[in-house]
Amino acid sequence: MEGKGILLIMDGLGDLPDKLGRTPLSAAKKPNMDKLAKEGILGLLSPIGRGNVPGSDTSHLTLLGYPYWEFYCGRGPLEALGSGIKLRHGDVAFRANFATVKNGKILDRRAGRIPTELGKKLAQRICKMYIEGIEVSFMSTVEHRGVVVMRGPGLGANVSPTDPHEIGPVLESHAFREDSAKTARVLNAFTKRAMEELSKAPENSGRALAANAILSRGPGTYVEVEPFVKRLGITGVCVAGGALYKGVARYIGMDIIGVKGATGSKDTDLKAKGKAAVEALKSHDFVFVHVKATDSFSHDKNCEGKKKMIERVDKELVPLIRGSGANLIITGDHSTVCALGKHTGDEVPLLAWGPGFRADAQKKFSEVSCMGGGLGHLDGWDLMPVMLNAMGRARMVGT
Amino acid sequence: MEGKGILLIMDGLGDLPDKLGRTPLSAAKKPNMDKLAKEGILGLLSPIGRGNVPGSDTSHLTLLGYPYWEFYCGRGPLEALGSGIKLRHGDVAFRANFATVKNGKILDRRAGRIPTELGKKLAQRICKMYIEGIEVSFMSTVEHRGVVVMRGPGLGANVSPTDPHEIGPVLESHAFREDSAKTARVLNAFTKRAMEELSKAPENSGRALAANAILSRGPGTYVEVEPFVKRLGITGVCVAGGALYKGVARYIGMDIIGVKGATGSKDTDLKAKGKAAVEALKSHDFVFVHVKATDSFSHDKNCEGKKKMIERVDKELVPLIRGSGANLIITGDHSTVCALGKHTGDEVPLLAWGPGFRADAQKKFSEVSCMGGGLGHLDGWDLMPVMLNAMGRARMVGT
Repeated sequence: MEGKGILLIMDGLGDLPDKLGRTPLSAAKKPNMDKLAKEGILGLLSPIGRGNVPGSDTSHLTLLGYPYWEFYCGRGPLEALGSGIKLRHGDVAFRANFATVKNGKILDRRAGRIPTELGKKLAQRICKMYIEGIEVSFMSTVEHRGVVVMRGPGLGANVSPTDPHEIGPVLESHAFREDSAKTARVLNAFTKRAMEELSKAPENSGRALAANAILSRGPGTYVEVEPFVKRLGITGVCVAGGALYKGVARYIGMDIIGVKGATGSKDTDLKAKGKAAVEALKSHDFVFVHVKATDSFSHDKNCEGKKKMIERVDKELVPLIRGSGANLIITGDHSTVCALGKHTGDEVPLLAWGPGFRADAQKKFSEVSCMGGGLGHLDGWDLMPVMLNAMGRARMVGT
Repeated sequence: MEGKGILLIMDGLGDLPDKLGRTPLSAAKKPNMDKLAKEGILGLLSPIGRGNVPGSDTSHLTLLGYPYWEFYCGRGPLEALGSGIKLRHGDVAFRANFATVKNGKILDRRAGRIPTELGKKLAQRICKMYIEGIEVSFMSTVEHRGVVVMRGPGLGANVSPTDPHEIGPVLESHAFREDSAKTARVLNAFTKRAMEELSKAPENSGRALAANAILSRGPGTYVEVEPFVKRLGITGVCVAGGALYKGVARYIGMDIIGVKGATGSKDTDLKAKGKAAVEALKSHDFVFVHVKATDSFSHDKNCEGKKKMIERVDKELVPLIRGSGANLIITGDHSTVCALGKHTGDEVPLLAWGPGFRADAQKKFSEVSCMGGGLGHLDGWDLMPVMLNAMGRARMVGT
């Protein structure tokens, strides 16, 4: 299918070899991807430049044509957008957690991972406050997770988090720059009043770990950016389970398809995602499909789980998107090394296949075969130009 | 011949494989280029960055050391300069066509490709006008082609063309920016007066397709740039048939050698060009040789013609430049895919050979062998530094 493209991101796909030289990708039985590799062309991807360690947010922005150094607005706005919250230009948003605080110390950063329903009820008690002329909203999302949004004049996002990311006292926020002094004061006042309200909440009575505090982090100012269809010249749509990836898509103005069973977890329905992606090609030029669990297994240092997840993607998702005949790029947003359980700046294997791509001499899809791939070494910002060219949708520069 | 270099550009050289995996370059019988490939080093070139689709003008500027984002001034000035027209800093120039208009509609965008002689005669009737204090000149070049040049205060080049690039009414030009409002008015007035004058011209009587209108496009403001010898530190000369390529050379201050039989068409005298290039090495450090027909065949979707043109270059031109002993780079300014008949952003095969270049393990010159070439993936702005280094003429940065 000329003129169309699918980008499949297996989160954290790249890895380092074990003592026998195997990575989850090289060890996985994945006949469908290997066939694509044989017929297509390989390369290695540095999502935010050689050696640099990408976050999932900065990487996805860059891969989708919005280089992080220009467009990254912090995690808060992306999480908020991904949870379906509407933001206005200038809003400051934080990722937030319900937590348990006792005698001024955090007992549990996640309040025992409270059920989503309880979070929704508690949120009603702190959903709207006005502090120094700023409207402060709190919205719960999934389990202990939520979002704090500030709206009003004189806000900046250069503030420290109240979440210490460990057990200890709730932190006082302070501004790194004068333009954000008001934000820090408002955040501290909100944190204090939220704790007062939640401590009184009858929903918390009888719970060993009362959800009686809100911890905030990942501040960012939401700004409107040039929409995807205008910047890239094609229509784009996202098929993802995780909120962050949907948030990135919404931020850059891509459409989002809700897929039943797409959970962003290891139990995600890959066939449903594949079918949705192929169906979406009828209405859109470009589909971004995201699979999260490869990364989650890596963070859990579960190499076998990562390998099996790659095998599931090969069996359940790849045949569907191959069958569409669209140009395909299959890669990751960064390497997450199982042995370390964390993101690294190692290059990510990349496979491209379709009517607009050349073929190289490689036969399998692995970190090592990609080293000899015909696409060579790509930076994240090369990805959409290369895809647009394969789709025949790149604009000529000059005459 | 150390210290000297020849850059041979076969326009639109790169291609995508057919169903049997062949491209015009890989299928061509070209023993001389393959011998150079065996003795030299290969790579892949992205003239204006990975995936981006180059025009011939932006590409050549960048390849010759003048990156397009800083130096591209639009097609008009380059065409004018290439036709031998002298421009002054600030002139606004357009590429123009004689066309046939009847009842307000364009019947033929090229007026039946009128003979050059008729164009010259008709041009005398509209060669100079004064509109709003602006001197407007028209010069015919080859067949239906010509150039419009505006000279005077208050001009800008941010205007739309009057040439609709299809059959329909002649377009009214409008300004994209306020600084170009006068340019649009002057162009519209010129277009109207030119039509009045040409409609009365006795040279048109009896012609089914009267050359009675001028269509303009490719506006650009000419600015003087740092000359080649100063910017690169070497003397350079151009051997080309096509006006655009000579225009690029003149714009950047290279010398130009007129070669009898160098037509910019498929009948061009390749031996004459090769001899001229080798002769030019006596007076210059660097020679840029351009062959246009490979691109023309690609635009016509004539794969076989492109292949045979490459074989002709191999037989008639390559032995001469090889014989000079100078450092050689043979590549294209972009890929023009025969199956599509248009420019693409696919990487262009590149071959380098000579006393200043290493040798790699590759044996033939093709898109696929270049994927494994020792030079890897080059951007257009890498080309002159690589050539200067091979020539031993690069300046050290630091001590």
